[in-house]
Amino acid sequence: MTNTSSPIRVTFERLAQFITASMAQLGLPSADAAVIGRLMAEADLQGSDGHGVIRLPQYARRIRAGGINVTPSIKVVQERPGMALLDGDNGMGHLVMQRAAEMAIEKARVCGVAWVGTQFSNHAGPASLYARMPMAQNMIGLYFAVGNANHLPPWGGLDMLLSTNPIAVALPAGEEPPVVLDMATTVAAYGKVKAKAQRGEMMPLGWMIDRLGQPLTDPKRAEEGFLMPIGGYKGYGLALIVGLLAGTLNGAAMGSEVIDFNHDDTSVTNTGQSILAIDLSAFGDVDAFKARVDRLVRELRDSERMPGVERIWLPGEQSHDRRAHYEREGIPLAPALMAQLDKVALELGVPTLLTT
Amino acid sequence: MTNTSSPIRVTFERLAQFITASMAQLGLPSADAAVIGRLMAEADLQGSDGHGVIRLPQYARRIRAGGINVTPSIKVVQERPGMALLDGDNGMGHLVMQRAAEMAIEKARVCGVAWVGTQFSNHAGPASLYARMPMAQNMIGLYFAVGNANHLPPWGGLDMLLSTNPIAVALPAGEEPPVVLDMATTVAAYGKVKAKAQRGEMMPLGWMIDRLGQPLTDPKRAEEGFLMPIGGYKGYGLALIVGLLAGTLNGAAMGSEVIDFNHDDTSVTNTGQSILAIDLSAFGDVDAFKARVDRLVRELRDSERMPGVERIWLPGEQSHDRRAHYEREGIPLAPALMAQLDKVALELGVPTLLTT
Repeated sequence: MTNTSSPIRVTFERLAQFITASMAQLGLPSADAAVIGRLMAEADLQGSDGHGVIRLPQYARRIRAGGINVTPSIKVVQERPGMALLDGDNGMGHLVMQRAAEMAIEKARVCGVAWVGTQFSNHAGPASLYARMPMAQNMIGLYFAVGNANHLPPWGGLDMLLSTNPIAVALPAGEEPPVVLDMATTVAAYGKVKAKAQRGEMMPLGWMIDRLGQPLTDPKRAEEGFLMPIGGYKGYGLALIVGLLAGTLNGAAMGSEVIDFNHDDTSVTNTGQSILAIDLSAFGDVDAFKARVDRLVRELRDSERMPGVERIWLPGEQSHDRRAHYEREGIPLAPALMAQLDKVALELGVPTLLTT
Repeated sequence: MTNTSSPIRVTFERLAQFITASMAQLGLPSADAAVIGRLMAEADLQGSDGHGVIRLPQYARRIRAGGINVTPSIKVVQERPGMALLDGDNGMGHLVMQRAAEMAIEKARVCGVAWVGTQFSNHAGPASLYARMPMAQNMIGLYFAVGNANHLPPWGGLDMLLSTNPIAVALPAGEEPPVVLDMATTVAAYGKVKAKAQRGEMMPLGWMIDRLGQPLTDPKRAEEGFLMPIGGYKGYGLALIVGLLAGTLNGAAMGSEVIDFNHDDTSVTNTGQSILAIDLSAFGDVDAFKARVDRLVRELRDSERMPGVERIWLPGEQSHDRRAHYEREGIPLAPALMAQLDKVALELGVPTLLTT
């Protein structure tokens, strides 16, 4: 018997297996199901819990409604030595982006940098998942994506024509954890609003405003307002630019073309993403670069703190610690989520997550 | 006689000539002086008045103190088909970045995208100047730079180890003005604080805090506090990432290595910048891309406005309008700046700006 309020812990391997089995039951080829299983479990492992297995019920619903192609033919539609544009054929975003990241890495080895964009992709989980991929090859990764629901109006406007379009950048260090920034261009991501609503908590001032421009702090009223961009018009500008680089450039949906995948399970989303890989060895000695990052990281961490501040964090450091912790202790899943996943397991006829 | 409180207007050509003559008198080869003259005047023309001719007295002081190499040998120190790293030999940043932008454009024509970084460069004016350069070749430009003075501590910290490290992105449209974002990663750029001090005005809440984390609104006390990053820890993360991509990656100064060029005229700044050019033709039909940007721009501009909002602006649109206005009416220069420029003219023995 498990305590209903404390989270249940599962290993990364078990979580990946469970997702893989579910995806296979949904009709995906087993190799593709396994890629998605590992990437989604990886999201939970690094603490991106709004973008990991929590999305499985929605993905399953969408696949069963015919909104995602389970046997896509992902193909290169444009190519030059340092770039490619992939047509994801409406496949799962994880598969399309995994392929895009691989191509960017391969091309960056030759050109020094390479950019791969996607069209007809889908939601692919947390941005940092893909920005991190080039790091294993001693490369920097940058990732831009068009979000799958518009929650942001232009600055001064009321029509939600923009998504929280995330940016992620990952740079390897030497002895220190990598520097990984993964941020929505809004003060809070919409997932955080949903989490507040689930927990029955109010939101801090500055997360959302209503249609009169007044602060909105009750997450249950979220549909009556919209997210605030970071730095006011600057965050609006960033969200727009990210959308242009990940959507418009790739011939993918942007602005009013974006399908709200929370409320529409069947329309092709034509999601766009872009990844840039930068090969460190093209710029000089890789170890010297990593040593410079280490020095900078330590300089920031060890610098003088404001009264009351216990520690200065580097971007990605908390996620790095969480990963180590979850690898040891297991990944925590809230009981409410567990119940949803049991339901998915039952529907698909796969063993539940806690079946051993 | 001119009214001492209203600005004096000069043409772009006259301003460029004046700067060119000043630079030539400071020892720069005439072709280099002309490049700097045009780029600095261009900054004023687009309304980036904190980064145009207002910097001339400082540049002149620095050059005469030996802090800038007036006859640099700018060379490629690393190269691959899609990237290069330039050593600016401590030349004027405008020259180094002009060369970097040209190389990025040339390489992007072949590879689809190309990245050129600089080391041993110097302050180069407004970020958008360089992000805009690829647009004339139907390319998108992205520019990252390490600022030349640290005004930002890490989030929760007191040591100003980061600069306002700007990001600029420029994308061409069809019939609409280009979309050009040029933003410091702080709520306000330091130049805006200086401008408030000059005008004797107070700063809005949120621009700066003091060492106890309390709001600082008196710009004359600016040295007692620091700028606030946009979106709190997110802006800190962005400033850091931009610094890593423009400084650390290029072997240029970052963190405590950054020379405060407002207080030090002689130390080599080893300024780092990076530019990325993306060739639109690699991604498909250029006119189709521009038509998509036009559609998006109009959709945003024509969308419903919040009560009291007169117009929804696109990033770069106000600057675009200002450019057209200044081309017709002349570039306004404040009398106080004019007096400083007259002093520079006298010292260098060049005709003053208003000499015809």
